[in-house]
Amino acid sequence: MYQLIKKCGDARLGEFTTVHGTVKTPGFMNVATVAAIKGGLSALDLKDVRCQVMLCNTYHLHVRTGDEKIKELGGLHAFTRWDGPILTDSGGFQVFSLASIRNIKEEGVVFQSHIDGRRIFMGPEESMRIQSNLGSTIAMAFDECVENPAKYDYAKLSCERTTRWLIRCKEEHERLNALRDTVNPHQLLFGINQGCTYNDLRIKHMEEIAKLDLDGYAIGGLAVGEPTEEMYRVISAVEPYMPKNKIRYLMGVGTPGNILESVKRGVDLFDCVMPSRNARHGHLFTRKGVINLNNAKYELDTRPVDESCGCPVCRNFSRAYLRHLTKAKEVLALRLCVMHNLWFYNTLMEDIRAALENDTFEDFYTRNVNLLDRRRTD
Amino acid sequence: MYQLIKKCGDARLGEFTTVHGTVKTPGFMNVATVAAIKGGLSALDLKDVRCQVMLCNTYHLHVRTGDEKIKELGGLHAFTRWDGPILTDSGGFQVFSLASIRNIKEEGVVFQSHIDGRRIFMGPEESMRIQSNLGSTIAMAFDECVENPAKYDYAKLSCERTTRWLIRCKEEHERLNALRDTVNPHQLLFGINQGCTYNDLRIKHMEEIAKLDLDGYAIGGLAVGEPTEEMYRVISAVEPYMPKNKIRYLMGVGTPGNILESVKRGVDLFDCVMPSRNARHGHLFTRKGVINLNNAKYELDTRPVDESCGCPVCRNFSRAYLRHLTKAKEVLALRLCVMHNLWFYNTLMEDIRAALENDTFEDFYTRNVNLLDRRRTD
Repeated sequence: MYQLIKKCGDARLGEFTTVHGTVKTPGFMNVATVAAIKGGLSALDLKDVRCQVMLCNTYHLHVRTGDEKIKELGGLHAFTRWDGPILTDSGGFQVFSLASIRNIKEEGVVFQSHIDGRRIFMGPEESMRIQSNLGSTIAMAFDECVENPAKYDYAKLSCERTTRWLIRCKEEHERLNALRDTVNPHQLLFGINQGCTYNDLRIKHMEEIAKLDLDGYAIGGLAVGEPTEEMYRVISAVEPYMPKNKIRYLMGVGTPGNILESVKRGVDLFDCVMPSRNARHGHLFTRKGVINLNNAKYELDTRPVDESCGCPVCRNFSRAYLRHLTKAKEVLALRLCVMHNLWFYNTLMEDIRAALENDTFEDFYTRNVNLLDRRRTD
Repeated sequence: MYQLIKKCGDARLGEFTTVHGTVKTPGFMNVATVAAIKGGLSALDLKDVRCQVMLCNTYHLHVRTGDEKIKELGGLHAFTRWDGPILTDSGGFQVFSLASIRNIKEEGVVFQSHIDGRRIFMGPEESMRIQSNLGSTIAMAFDECVENPAKYDYAKLSCERTTRWLIRCKEEHERLNALRDTVNPHQLLFGINQGCTYNDLRIKHMEEIAKLDLDGYAIGGLAVGEPTEEMYRVISAVEPYMPKNKIRYLMGVGTPGNILESVKRGVDLFDCVMPSRNARHGHLFTRKGVINLNNAKYELDTRPVDESCGCPVCRNFSRAYLRHLTKAKEVLALRLCVMHNLWFYNTLMEDIRAALENDTFEDFYTRNVNLLDRRRTD
């Protein structure tokens, strides 16, 4: 459960206790889509990059190897050997973004598997059952991810349906947790706020789902193409209506600058594929901005990516070696770049927490917010 | 330098001392083609899989990032951070197998880069200069790798040219080692025996190159498609003519069974891409035969790949998880499978050495030679 330790403006320092350990917040969750971090990192490596929470994708695990089989194998913790908290998404985002043919009804969504094309039905109950089988620490409610931009009328109808789906999720989740053979009887459930970029829909929806007294609340449907300022506006609009005693999770966000801006607006938890996706392109985060390893100037650069970084990559390898591996498209390039970027995100959160603890968050924010996302110049 | 500790039949237990550390033989070299092990293993990981020698490919490093740049960066040891012995091949094998257009003359070979198509000339002196720039512990002489099968007359002419090339290699190698700014002034040079599958050519060539008193001798041009029995026949034929006080390296070999057969015939050193190539297809070596992770029977198998294996993968992950990662084509599958297979090869060599030490090699050979390469049944 969430405990607020202190506030600096709207920014919150807190702790979130789960059956798999305590998460210090603000915190960043490391994405392990199919129960493996992209770039060849195992659960053992996650400890080395100071990860607190691993995030797995329900849809991907449902279609391959299958949640029922993973349940037989003891759930995601036994499967991956990660013993810290695991959050599973609802599957909704993938259903709405990956599946080519889909049909949304009150009961749920019919869509085709992107692997073998077979027809799959997923609704609130199915999503809860899959996540229960996976035995994650935190399950996410099944919601509709509306495309951006969306018409007001559709957004409103979708919001109302997402609320009805959430009620069904909660009911099914409680039933599953109480079953004798459930993998994790202490599984938590987070609700997801929707409403596109319409302040009034966001607020109304937040007020409704807050009544359900869930274990945490996420803001979904942002960072899907809208201007960043619009995202910040929505967060600021909805934040006053989020329960103070519950953890708040901004889904799929974002750049280091986005995270800093969102912490300032009261968000506690983040996830994003950016550390691994950018690593794939040789883009590395540093405290002085982003390095692009494809740049010829690093060819003979014997310095680490960031002299001030204590990650396993910067402690051992040069920019020149990483550039060489990147140009040669070696798997090792991907692994080392992902390791560095995840370490960067995880330790950025540590420093944000330290700044909150020491009452220097405003200063930390000012010094870093415009620096982190820009291109590094040395 | 090589020190023979003891013999069991023709099998030899020995030690090979280099400026970068001592190699216990029989030993297996781990292939890091472009200065990185396939599957995302770094030099740091090599220690964890009990690697003794890393092998890098001269041709690949010449065409990308370039040996002169790697020299500027301090050579391969500084570049990769591997501080043990490194062997570089001559580039010859890639020139003769990868390059589409080539033209062999007495001076050397003109061929096209497989990366950008540019014309490259490589002869004995060029190969020595590139390997000197890379600063490897052991350089290999530049030889012609004749296709199999080859006509006797061509094989004979090629052999004679390879001898002339070897003399030029030795001269250039000595000159380079004596230069003031050379990366590794203690670089060793191995000659390579050729002669296709013709015993008389093999023996004559071996006798000639033995006179040059090189730091070690390799048998090249085998395991290129000829029947295994023919390979063993050639090794047995040429072995009596190899200097007793020099290390013997069988290039590009092979399966665990091949290695055991070749140790029995007096070979000390091996390299092969098989541990990583087979890993890519989900084929894992164990002491009871080969496991194919694609086999459906492993889907719910919570056992490690091999209960008797102490590798980082078997200590942590199940067959079911590895199979899941393999089916999902996750990079992590590749990494974990390569780790296991390299550990298998490296510790197989440890056990061969222990058997030689304890005078139980014949027994070890008999128990294992037909077991290791076959399909595991449980």
